[in-house]
Amino acid sequence: MNLDKFFKAKSIAIVGVSQNPSKVGHVIFRNLIDSGYKGDIFIINPNTKEILGYKSYKKIYDIKNEIDLAVIAVPVDLVFQVLEDCNKKRVKNIIIVTSGFKEIGNYQLENKIRNFLIQNKIDMIGVNCLGVLDTYTNVDTLFLPRFRLKRPPKGGISFISQSGAVGSTILDLAAKNDYGFSKFISYGNATQIDESDLMDYLINDKQTKVICMYIEGVVDGKKFIETAKKATRKKPVLVLKGGITEESNTATISHTGSLAGDAAIYKGVFKQTGIIQVSTMEEIFDYSKLLENSIKPKGRRIQVITNGGGFGIITTDSIIKNDLVLAELSDSSKKILKKNFPPIAQIHNPLDLLGDANTERYKLAIETCMNDSNIDIILVIALLQTPLVTVDIVDVITELNDIKKKPIIVVCTGGNFTQVLKDSLEENGVPTFTFPENAVKSIKSLVDYARK
Amino acid sequence: MNLDKFFKAKSIAIVGVSQNPSKVGHVIFRNLIDSGYKGDIFIINPNTKEILGYKSYKKIYDIKNEIDLAVIAVPVDLVFQVLEDCNKKRVKNIIIVTSGFKEIGNYQLENKIRNFLIQNKIDMIGVNCLGVLDTYTNVDTLFLPRFRLKRPPKGGISFISQSGAVGSTILDLAAKNDYGFSKFISYGNATQIDESDLMDYLINDKQTKVICMYIEGVVDGKKFIETAKKATRKKPVLVLKGGITEESNTATISHTGSLAGDAAIYKGVFKQTGIIQVSTMEEIFDYSKLLENSIKPKGRRIQVITNGGGFGIITTDSIIKNDLVLAELSDSSKKILKKNFPPIAQIHNPLDLLGDANTERYKLAIETCMNDSNIDIILVIALLQTPLVTVDIVDVITELNDIKKKPIIVVCTGGNFTQVLKDSLEENGVPTFTFPENAVKSIKSLVDYARK
Repeated sequence: MNLDKFFKAKSIAIVGVSQNPSKVGHVIFRNLIDSGYKGDIFIINPNTKEILGYKSYKKIYDIKNEIDLAVIAVPVDLVFQVLEDCNKKRVKNIIIVTSGFKEIGNYQLENKIRNFLIQNKIDMIGVNCLGVLDTYTNVDTLFLPRFRLKRPPKGGISFISQSGAVGSTILDLAAKNDYGFSKFISYGNATQIDESDLMDYLINDKQTKVICMYIEGVVDGKKFIETAKKATRKKPVLVLKGGITEESNTATISHTGSLAGDAAIYKGVFKQTGIIQVSTMEEIFDYSKLLENSIKPKGRRIQVITNGGGFGIITTDSIIKNDLVLAELSDSSKKILKKNFPPIAQIHNPLDLLGDANTERYKLAIETCMNDSNIDIILVIALLQTPLVTVDIVDVITELNDIKKKPIIVVCTGGNFTQVLKDSLEENGVPTFTFPENAVKSIKSLVDYARK
Repeated sequence: MNLDKFFKAKSIAIVGVSQNPSKVGHVIFRNLIDSGYKGDIFIINPNTKEILGYKSYKKIYDIKNEIDLAVIAVPVDLVFQVLEDCNKKRVKNIIIVTSGFKEIGNYQLENKIRNFLIQNKIDMIGVNCLGVLDTYTNVDTLFLPRFRLKRPPKGGISFISQSGAVGSTILDLAAKNDYGFSKFISYGNATQIDESDLMDYLINDKQTKVICMYIEGVVDGKKFIETAKKATRKKPVLVLKGGITEESNTATISHTGSLAGDAAIYKGVFKQTGIIQVSTMEEIFDYSKLLENSIKPKGRRIQVITNGGGFGIITTDSIIKNDLVLAELSDSSKKILKKNFPPIAQIHNPLDLLGDANTERYKLAIETCMNDSNIDIILVIALLQTPLVTVDIVDVITELNDIKKKPIIVVCTGGNFTQVLKDSLEENGVPTFTFPENAVKSIKSLVDYARK
């Protein structure tokens, strides 16, 4: 199954574009125009002649050009007819955003569609979905207005989501925080193309560095396990499993028609295949950012460097709770630090640079840890509120991080002044966190992935 | 012990104000001028005549006016002499920000200071601390420049922190997010005034609605238990305990000279006294905001209302994991909703208003739940990316929340467009969260407090 044309379509036809700007088909059309998409766009609406200056066709097969991808946004009772029209036009890649199928008990129509697709060798994402977004080609079928839902910049995270809302709101948050994404696919009921097909496609996608997934129910367990094993050998795969309690099972059926299944079985499958299971939406966000940007650590020994004693303590608690290890500074490192630090500084882990720490002290501490073979990961807590930490700390950390010898993760907690410097670090490829506990949990996912 | 003068001082003397603007004493002086503090400010530095237009005194007892509060920011070896000077001037309230005492093994000097304070009936916050901030009176002794660390607006959260950094960075974050604070106290080594004294003071402070604490070690266990029991009867008390692992114990000693003690014992004490123990910095933030703004729920039955099916599922999982209960809509509620909602809508919990939900549908759903005695708490997930949710959803939710019949908590996940509406809800007193899991955990703290 080659899904290239879903992301690299040179021509897209949208079937069911209303004149009404708040209707789904119209929003998709409008977004595609605004997205910067370079291919040809065609629209189908038998009741009008043109919309926004584009000729409206009665039927998709009235279009002379070849159509790489058709997006179907017509009411549910018209979907099958449109599918037949698409087949007549020999369209091989289709997204059906329309809902009203097995998620409300309408299994018959959904099965009829599936059989038709198989018979005619058509690949289809949907039904009951948002479709795809590719930040590199600007293919964008998300029927959410761009002013309400910003699209993130280009980057290495790809997201496969059974829920349109979970995935798309994360895109919107990512855009706000300037996290780069590659591809997003909301696949809804998985009528034909399922989560495993999509994961399989992303394994060899060069723009994808990290695969994130939100799954309610897996269609084919065996296929999922095989694909996941293959995927995690090449890149990290994060999964948020929705429907892990009995109470949410009813909800998954009426959402995407999936059986949520036994949470313990899923947990076992994720472990066995090397998938990192996250337990909150925030974790997808935190972990994927770190996994995308950080080099692999050699082990799980962390050295904490801080200018706030309380932060050192909270971070230590978090390291132990997450089954990670506090590194033990080598004797030669201790010697260097003792010689250069104020006499009241305690040379241990966490290494407290004290409230009067300046940028030079940070530089020496990080450099020393970089050269210490007892240390695998450097966690720098830089509270930028103190007067002697100068703004060139951004350059100092960036230069040390650019050596790519060990992962350096930075925690900066604070308001606007802090945020500006934190953003600069992020722009320079240094992963940062607001809270130490989130940083440590994310480091755990990095260690787990590196150990695989 | 009446600590009023620490927060309502009509005159403040700062001992140890350097001409150098990056030195601690100078920063405190400068901040106090800029804070809008209405009282008199005096500075003591024997080596200069004036700083920033203020006369500099040689000794505190050279000042003619009465001094309500003295802030000592001289080097450690001068502290005792200055203390004697303060006593000569009959100053009864002192903050010592200087460090270099028991946290580095200098027990002798710290004990000498304690004995002197007791003998002369002087109340002292410190040593090794940031002192206090009162957003109502603008007393502000935090030696962190105001452009680097913003002060939050007036509000109902007060924060007692053994760590200056943990507390002050939270203030800075709060300022950014526009969360209101009343008082902040960084008390460092607790040489004389300890965490229990401070908690005791806040019990009867009308501006304080929620007491938050970051504690490494408690000075007097029995006193703490008695005070905490008294406090939790009047308002919620949240504690983040630093040093809950063996590994962090060394760090607590070199930080504030405290023994972190056995984590299990602390856990028991918190439970017994009705304190809500949080496990991350983010939780302090989330829980205190909700506890400040929400009315008490009658029980723990939550109705989820959403326009994103996946969010309903994730939220349900989170509710069950947190030992809360999914409410069961009454028959009459079901009847109203069935009659007014599209036929494909499933009337259960979570109540999925579907992707085409408009503001009216939200209004009807929330109103129905408000009148349903099977429901204690209403959790509204409003994904504002969908075209039919109009911006007046802010007014609709605010009006319903203003009735104060049941707690309404709102989750809005997204980027800038979402943030604007989310901020409006917050300004109107509706507690909001970005992630459903954080909302549910915070609701748990509200339920726990209400059940007490």
